[in-house]
Amino acid sequence: MAYLESPWGTAMAQPIDFYFFIGSLHTYLALMRIDEAIDAGVEIRWRPFNLRAIMMEQNNIPARNPVKMSYIYRDVARRAKRFGHPFEGRPKYPFDPDLLANRVAVVAAQQDWCRDYVTAVYRSWIVEHGSPDDPEALTPLLKALGKEPSVVLAAADSAATQAQFDATTDEARALGIFGAPTFAVGKEIFWGSDRFDDALDWARNN
Amino acid sequence: MAYLESPWGTAMAQPIDFYFFIGSLHTYLALMRIDEAIDAGVEIRWRPFNLRAIMMEQNNIPARNPVKMSYIYRDVARRAKRFGHPFEGRPKYPFDPDLLANRVAVVAAQQDWCRDYVTAVYRSWIVEHGSPDDPEALTPLLKALGKEPSVVLAAADSAATQAQFDATTDEARALGIFGAPTFAVGKEIFWGSDRFDDALDWARNN
Repeated sequence: MAYLESPWGTAMAQPIDFYFFIGSLHTYLALMRIDEAIDAGVEIRWRPFNLRAIMMEQNNIPARNPVKMSYIYRDVARRAKRFGHPFEGRPKYPFDPDLLANRVAVVAAQQDWCRDYVTAVYRSWIVEHGSPDDPEALTPLLKALGKEPSVVLAAADSAATQAQFDATTDEARALGIFGAPTFAVGKEIFWGSDRFDDALDWARNN
Repeated sequence: MAYLESPWGTAMAQPIDFYFFIGSLHTYLALMRIDEAIDAGVEIRWRPFNLRAIMMEQNNIPARNPVKMSYIYRDVARRAKRFGHPFEGRPKYPFDPDLLANRVAVVAAQQDWCRDYVTAVYRSWIVEHGSPDDPEALTPLLKALGKEPSVVLAAADSAATQAQFDATTDEARALGIFGAPTFAVGKEIFWGSDRFDDALDWARNN
């Protein structure tokens, strides 16, 4: 796809669809850099999807491989240190068994506070070793974001939110997504926090 | 581990154990950059190991996931282009069913021509879409390296070579290796061609 011309006459980058799943460790590293895209004038569209369902379908379950999981923790800790992001040892894992934290992200993505919400959840989970994946733990977090917890949590439990979550998961499946984070620029997908720079370049140059 | 002092009094980097498996696509990308380590004064120790056995043990078999495999091809092609390495579409896959190309690497690693051999095999496989994984196809490749094919192939089929291959695989297993390429600096492991720079930094600074 060629550059689109913006109304101001300068070349405009394509948006990046940021497919993420709260509970993915490497999504934390991507999240810590996501503002770089925004600063570079690239729109980030927040796409919470049900990665767990896709991984089960594909029998692709690193959590069942203790050797690989052990490496993943070490890798995220080392990369966090390299980039100057806080990481305080292993967080609670698995996380969000009822997908509530993820469904709240669906609600937030339909409004305008997904970045702040996901950042707050990851800070609580990774840095403070909290478990913001049930109504009790999510309530103060939502309040701190200026949201009414009862309204948000009811929306997260609604059929409409589940339908939106499922629809985004279908979109991810159609794109060939199998892990998180994945950056999509149109139909071009980039898997992993390691591909953030490549995705950014693609969004600006294709 | 602190810097070792070389006989010349300058800080000496630790060696990198380069665990690789011929047939791994991302190993091609690592291989294309391996001379950067040598140029930086970091010793590369060639460690061909039986990744296939380890992945089977861990039920970690991307080749059974067509969605992920499709991405892996695209990713390697895109990365090769980004770094200026030739990549001519999908090579023959799976490759080296009898592990012969890998066992020749074991022979080469015990001598001094592993880098040149592995480079030649990958060039044949990735760039020329050959299948240098049987005696007939390996013969001209070995000749071009100035080796006597019958001697090398007999050595590759020997019990001693199999024992060395198994021993290196045991070392990989003990280090927690689950994929290739993996760079090991002492017991610190870095998985994937994406971690080449991190491994190099680690070898020089720890």
